[in-house]
Parts: sequence; structure tokens; C-alpha cells
Amino acid sequence: MTDKPFEIGVSSFADTYPNPETGERISDEQRLANLLEEIELADKVGLDVFGVGEHHRPDFAASSPATILAAAAATTKNIRLTSAVTVLSTDDPVRVFQQFATVDLISHGRAELTAGRGSFTESYPLFGYDLDDYDELFEEKLDLLLTVRENERVTWAGNHRAGINNRGVYPRPAQEQLPVWIGVGGNPASVERAGRLGLPLIVAIIGGAPARFVPLVDYYRQSAAAAGRDPRSLPVAINSHTFIADDSRDAADDAQPVRSAPLAAGRAPRRLPGRSSGENPLRVRTVRARPVRRPDRRGATAARRRDARHRTPGHEGGPARP
Amino acid sequence: MTDKPFEIGVSSFADTYPNPETGERISDEQRLANLLEEIELADKVGLDVFGVGEHHRPDFAASSPATILAAAAATTKNIRLTSAVTVLSTDDPVRVFQQFATVDLISHGRAELTAGRGSFTESYPLFGYDLDDYDELFEEKLDLLLTVRENERVTWAGNHRAGINNRGVYPRPAQEQLPVWIGVGGNPASVERAGRLGLPLIVAIIGGAPARFVPLVDYYRQSAAAAGRDPRSLPVAINSHTFIADDSRDAADDAQPVRSAPLAAGRAPRRLPGRSSGENPLRVRTVRARPVRRPDRRGATAARRRDARHRTPGHEGGPARP
Repeated sequence: MTDKPFEIGVSSFADTYPNPETGERISDEQRLANLLEEIELADKVGLDVFGVGEHHRPDFAASSPATILAAAAATTKNIRLTSAVTVLSTDDPVRVFQQFATVDLISHGRAELTAGRGSFTESYPLFGYDLDDYDELFEEKLDLLLTVRENERVTWAGNHRAGINNRGVYPRPAQEQLPVWIGVGGNPASVERAGRLGLPLIVAIIGGAPARFVPLVDYYRQSAAAAGRDPRSLPVAINSHTFIADDSRDAADDAQPVRSAPLAAGRAPRRLPGRSSGENPLRVRTVRARPVRRPDRRGATAARRRDARHRTPGHEGGPARP
Repeated sequence: MTDKPFEIGVSSFADTYPNPETGERISDEQRLANLLEEIELADKVGLDVFGVGEHHRPDFAASSPATILAAAAATTKNIRLTSAVTVLSTDDPVRVFQQFATVDLISHGRAELTAGRGSFTESYPLFGYDLDDYDELFEEKLDLLLTVRENERVTWAGNHRAGINNRGVYPRPAQEQLPVWIGVGGNPASVERAGRLGLPLIVAIIGGAPARFVPLVDYYRQSAAAAGRDPRSLPVAINSHTFIADDSRDAADDAQPVRSAPLAAGRAPRRLPGRSSGENPLRVRTVRARPVRRPDRRGATAARRRDARHRTPGHEGGPARP
């Protein structure tokens, strides 16, 4: 475990939204090259973590986070690499585990996995799942993922994936235990589950004041305590849209075209019914901070820079200043 | 297309068999680090292609070829990167395509995919498939893979995977068409299928004299012609165990401990019934040559070295000479 008071990082969905000023759109090839360069830079300046999302849409270049993180693993030294999030409900937890274990081996123990139900719906019909099973799917797939994480040889049965009768799952990760976080949008049942299972929590604050989410985190810690776990051992993280410049006016000016673009282009994400978070059209680039007590054994190696400044333009085609 | 008379490369299964002389076994973490170093070296000396296999056993560190190839994509410049093979029968072709498209984007158009039915059986019970469907599974999964390769928006139906109704699959690769090879062990029906579909063929010569496989290649070309395709447009490759040293005596001496180890350790691969190839306990490191006429648009960029010599020890823990 690290002794840092908090950690800070960046997440990206590798969006390829058109430049809000010129209308130009970069290729997926260029977008991923830029993304890998961003991750290398984040590693060099001492950020703690970089996350890559999973989407199955033409306006995002990242549908397989582990594949991208593996490339980043080979070109970085200290930064931790996570999905943000893996849409676990529509994937095979065995394959997901194998991919992240491979990233963990390549990165010498820097991989993490953030499991979520997904705030977009494209992956459900693509991989043959029913949105009516939204919650049951996640519960079951998470159960298999944690079973594979705990056991080299797996015996498991469920309703949405073929059972496994005493089969080995390889390779095993470099870390003693692959960190698995739960990413939530604001759903109390998801928060309760994470607390009950003793899994670290990441709250996506897509919109709204952070203070609004305090009751959710309180509920998480209460759920952990009710399950006999020590809430102080469980880290909590937030993901939030952030735009950093030399002063707040510069930041507001720089962010404006990006901020107003997605809705103008009719690209507001399709949300699932019942999601409690508000909507903010700012870009998917996020910064997250999380308290100490990391569940892994190598977290303490990352360089620490209390005053690192990180400038996050909307995207590579956007109005970033040189 | 390249104008080379042939191409040459190396494949690895990232085995972690014990050192035949010391009994020591390296970790999966060290094995993958060594493998990535090997691929970088292969790139630097001008080999044309590097392949990584897929196995679900404790003695192989590679169960997700695309994840490893993505790391190699970030650290190499010219070499082409392929699976050897992807066990397509027990995977989801949509996920496989997404992963290899991502590798293709990261490598700027150097990814290839070799699809096979698998010569090991572990993946079938692990992913919920029945060996009785061995051939039908491959036929159907290959059909979906080729459908996804041809179409950004996919409509498809089959017996072993949920149907898809007009859904997009992203990202798309950098190459105009992701090269898909068919890897065969000697099964005539597999060879006929590859010829009929006009897919390039890789023959795994695990044992036996190469001359024995000439009729198989003849049959492949006849099958292509019978389907109205020009056999001269279809490349053929062989994979064979190879051990290179300064002269044949050195090679034989160096190879001997490696050659005799797997059977001695009771690790002869479990073969499927009806496989026609013989057994040779030499290591999985292979060299393959393939004639010209590559199905991709960027193959001509790799450096060519007619007299490159490549030394292949049994494995990193093995008795390689300095």
C-alpha cells in the first residue's frame, strides 16, 4: 500500500468527436497514437493512474481497453493502467481476466480493472445480451470475475455464461491480486454491492456538484461495515470532467467550444433510464483522485508530485494551446 | 503487395517449460518480458513476421495473443504481428476482430490474424463449447469473422453465438482489410475450406518431412481454382520447428536437451484424434517462410535481409550459448 494522501490520474474514452471549431475529425489510428503519447506523458510527469474506457460506437476508438493498455504497459514505467470502465456485463469474465493478467505481467504489476455495467447500451445487442438482465448480468459476471481472481482452478455456474468445472485460467497476474474496482454512476444498489463485496469504489461524477455524491459514499461505507468489513481499508475514487489552465478564466475560455460541441452535434450519450447523475457535455477526459489504501502490492513505486499540473485539451483535434 | 520471393519469421507460444538441464522454470512475467525483447530483436534484424500463440495451460504464458501483440506493436517499427493461432472456435469473432483492429491501429497496419481450430482442447470446456462441434464451430465463427471484416455494420445469424441485427463493430483496422490466414495441421477439410474461401494458408509442420505436405498444398490450390479463384494470388506459409547454429553439428548438440525434454517430462501435447501430423518434441519456436502475394497493403515496408541468421534457443532458461 502507498502512503500517499491521494492519487491523481486521467481517463480517456479515445473519442473522435469532430473538432468543434473546424469540424475536422482525426482517424482512429491517429487518435490511438495520440492516446498512447498522452499515457507516456502522464507517466513521465508522475501521474498515478491512466484509465481507458470501452465503447462500441463509431465516435470512440477504444472498444478493447486491455489491448490499448498493453501497448501503454510496454512504453511506461510507473503509472498504473486501468479500464474505465470494462463493460463486464456483456463480456466473458474469463477472457477479461486473462487480458488484464497479461497487461499486469507486461507492466510488471501495474494493471487494474474497473468493472461497470456501462452507461451506453450498444454492447448489449452486439454481444447477444438483453438490457432487461442489466443488473443480474453484472452481478453474475462480477461473481465469475472474482472467482477467477481468487482461484487458479475454477468451478462456477451461472445463468448467462457456460459453467466451468475445475478448469485452470492462465496466465495469473504479476500482482498477488489483480485490483478490481467497481465503477458506478450513482446507482445505490451498485454502491451497496461494492461495499458488501469489499471492492474499491469509483464514482463517475459526470455532472452535478461533488457534494451531492457524499451520501452515496457514506452508503458505500455503511454497506461495507454492515458486511463486517473495515470501511477505512476501502479506497474511494471520483472521476470528473476537468479542464486545467493557468487560471480559471483561461480554463473557461479554452473549454467553451469543447463544452458546447457534443449537444450541438446531437451526440449527447444515450443514457439508461434511472441513472441518477446529471448530464454535462464536457469531454470524456477526466481526472480522478483517490485516497490511500490501495489493494495492490506495488502501488508505492509510482513517483509522487504534489504540484504536477496537467493540461487537458478537449481532444487532439480540439482548441488546445501549444 | 510485396515483391519478395518469400518472407521469414518466428512464432512463439511463450512456453514456460522447465530448463531441461537445471529443471528451473522462469515466471510468466519474465517469459513475456523475454518474448517482447525477442520480438523487438526480430524487428531490428529485419525478420518479416512474428507470431504469438494462444493456449490455456499453466505451461504457456500466452492466452491472449492480441494483448501481447499490442505491446509489441508499441515497441516495433516494421515487423508484422500475427496470432499463431487464434483459437477462433472458442472465442467471439467480434471481440477478436476488435482486438486485432486495435493492434492494427497501434502498429499502423502491421496486424494479421491466423485463425485455427486449436490443437489443444483446454479452451473448449473453459469457454463452454463442445468438442463434438469442433468443425461446425470453426466454420461458423470464421463466417462471422469474415462478415465483420467485410462490413462495418453487421447482420449475422448462427447456432453457436447470438445473432447480430445491423450493429456497428468498432474500431475498424488501419489496413483496408485485416489479413486473415487459416492455420491447419494437416486436415484436408480445413485446407479445402481455406482454398474455397480464398484465404491464405499456413501449414503447421509439427513433425514429418515437408515433402509430405506437398499434396495438401496442391489440394489447397485445386480447391481455390474450383471456387473460381486464382491460386497464384494466394500465399502459402509453413511453420516448422527450427534450430539454427553455425553448423549442423552445433545445432544438433544445442537442440538435444530441449528436444528430449517435453516427452521426458510427460508434457507431450494432447492431440486431437485424427490429426495427421506426427509429433516432434522440439520447442514451439518456429520459423516460417511464405511466398509473395500478401493480402495487405503495407507489407512492402519491412526491411529485407536474405542472409539474416537467427539463433533460437529452446527457451530463455534453456542451454543457449552466449
